[in-house]
Amino acid sequence: MYLIGIDSGGTHMVAEAYEERKRLVQENSGPGNIALDPAGTQRNIMTVLAQVFNQLPVAQCGGILIGIAGVAMAGGQEEIIAAVHRQYAVPVAVVSDADLALLNGLHGGPGVIAIAGTGSIVLAQKATGDRVRVGGWGWRFGDEGSAYDIVRRAFTMMAAARDDGQVSPIEPVLVAATQTSHYRAAVARSYQLDRGAFAGLARAVADAAQTGNTAAQACVTAAAEALAAQIHQALRRAGLPNASVVALAGSVAAKNDLFFSVLRRQLPDAELRRLQGSNAGGVQYYHFPQ
Amino acid sequence: MYLIGIDSGGTHMVAEAYEERKRLVQENSGPGNIALDPAGTQRNIMTVLAQVFNQLPVAQCGGILIGIAGVAMAGGQEEIIAAVHRQYAVPVAVVSDADLALLNGLHGGPGVIAIAGTGSIVLAQKATGDRVRVGGWGWRFGDEGSAYDIVRRAFTMMAAARDDGQVSPIEPVLVAATQTSHYRAAVARSYQLDRGAFAGLARAVADAAQTGNTAAQACVTAAAEALAAQIHQALRRAGLPNASVVALAGSVAAKNDLFFSVLRRQLPDAELRRLQGSNAGGVQYYHFPQ
Repeated sequence: MYLIGIDSGGTHMVAEAYEERKRLVQENSGPGNIALDPAGTQRNIMTVLAQVFNQLPVAQCGGILIGIAGVAMAGGQEEIIAAVHRQYAVPVAVVSDADLALLNGLHGGPGVIAIAGTGSIVLAQKATGDRVRVGGWGWRFGDEGSAYDIVRRAFTMMAAARDDGQVSPIEPVLVAATQTSHYRAAVARSYQLDRGAFAGLARAVADAAQTGNTAAQACVTAAAEALAAQIHQALRRAGLPNASVVALAGSVAAKNDLFFSVLRRQLPDAELRRLQGSNAGGVQYYHFPQ
Repeated sequence: MYLIGIDSGGTHMVAEAYEERKRLVQENSGPGNIALDPAGTQRNIMTVLAQVFNQLPVAQCGGILIGIAGVAMAGGQEEIIAAVHRQYAVPVAVVSDADLALLNGLHGGPGVIAIAGTGSIVLAQKATGDRVRVGGWGWRFGDEGSAYDIVRRAFTMMAAARDDGQVSPIEPVLVAATQTSHYRAAVARSYQLDRGAFAGLARAVADAAQTGNTAAQACVTAAAEALAAQIHQALRRAGLPNASVVALAGSVAAKNDLFFSVLRRQLPDAELRRLQGSNAGGVQYYHFPQ
């Protein structure tokens, strides 16, 4: 008996099959945020499942766990489950992509998962199995530590300097990243970008931080400190010790070294785990109803 | 000789004709934000001008000053001036709606104008005539003291309480204002609202503050304090004394009594002027090239 995990995210989808902690196959498909594209998400899920079942026998599959971006807000689990059941007689469960990351990062045990990519959210799992959520309120009034947050801090820093008659070292970074020639044009351009493209400017801020731009470093550091504060809050509310497992997922939290070093400093006792790749492996820690 | 001022704003447009501080006529037309609708803005300007010239002789008009929302970012002044000149041989100038408010609020003298409606901006006019700008960076990283800012603070307050396992008194206000039945649904709904509709929820926060909701009062107070800080900064950078004229325009700054009382307390020496109605009267303080 093997299990299939599907990590259905905003930009791409990964399905993996596991048997006794060993990955049997991996397949990729297109994007799968159900809030943005319900039909496309379902289609892509059926495609990756067909690819996996092309290599492994359906009768040997003990369960399929699908973590879908946007499902906590938009719903649509029932339709996905029904679609899978029309083709395959296998137990299926749908959770949010954050819940799948929690399973993958904490291996079913207590601790905290902090996900910081375009947006951010922090989840704690108590020893009892109950969960506590901190953040994850979206770009308008949350997403601390996310790429969106880093870029927002960068523009705020540039604007504050100009309000004071000064020019911040972050200004040339943002002017170049927006392919403009003046800070006012950079601001105007930023308002033509959607949430994802705006957050994408974080790459330029991170690169500048890497090469010694102190203003860019301050933006990344402040974002990481904000996320660390939410992790502390989640640990406290879940009644977990500071020496807990804290798993980090998402492009910012898992890949940016300066960001990680700030988390390391702010959470000196935690067992930090940087998750790479998909969280499909979380299926191994999920209990399918028998 | 009389002068015509046109205040071309996001929701409506007002044209007024003045002669020696006396208003001769007033006409209204549709919206006129040139960034949102250049063709409609031009059409509405031509309509209100035709209405004024239906009552007053063109030959007696000494100049037309048009303050247009969005023109600082989007441009398009030349097209408007050309369109007016094709029909009328009268001097025409186009400025931003904020510049028109500054003329109307400061009567051509030194001081500060703070505009807080859906968005916000602070402008100071030095004794030399030079200007200093503070804020006005838009909803993503600015607009302190605006309706958008008040609503953002309200949602942030609700989210922070929930992150702490608490329920803020602002929560029922936001749940009711979004016509939902749960804070998660209120958050989801807020992300379906565009900038203007989101800012429009400030009315509900202001009403709750009025009837004693302490959390709502804290949101309005914090927004007003943020705007007061920008006004202080503008006075300082312009080299103006604390006892300067500070004109207040926009639905929040000019109409909300709690907001105004906070500004009053933060700026005890200033001569505060609350501007009501359109700023078309600013034309009286504009110097048309002879």
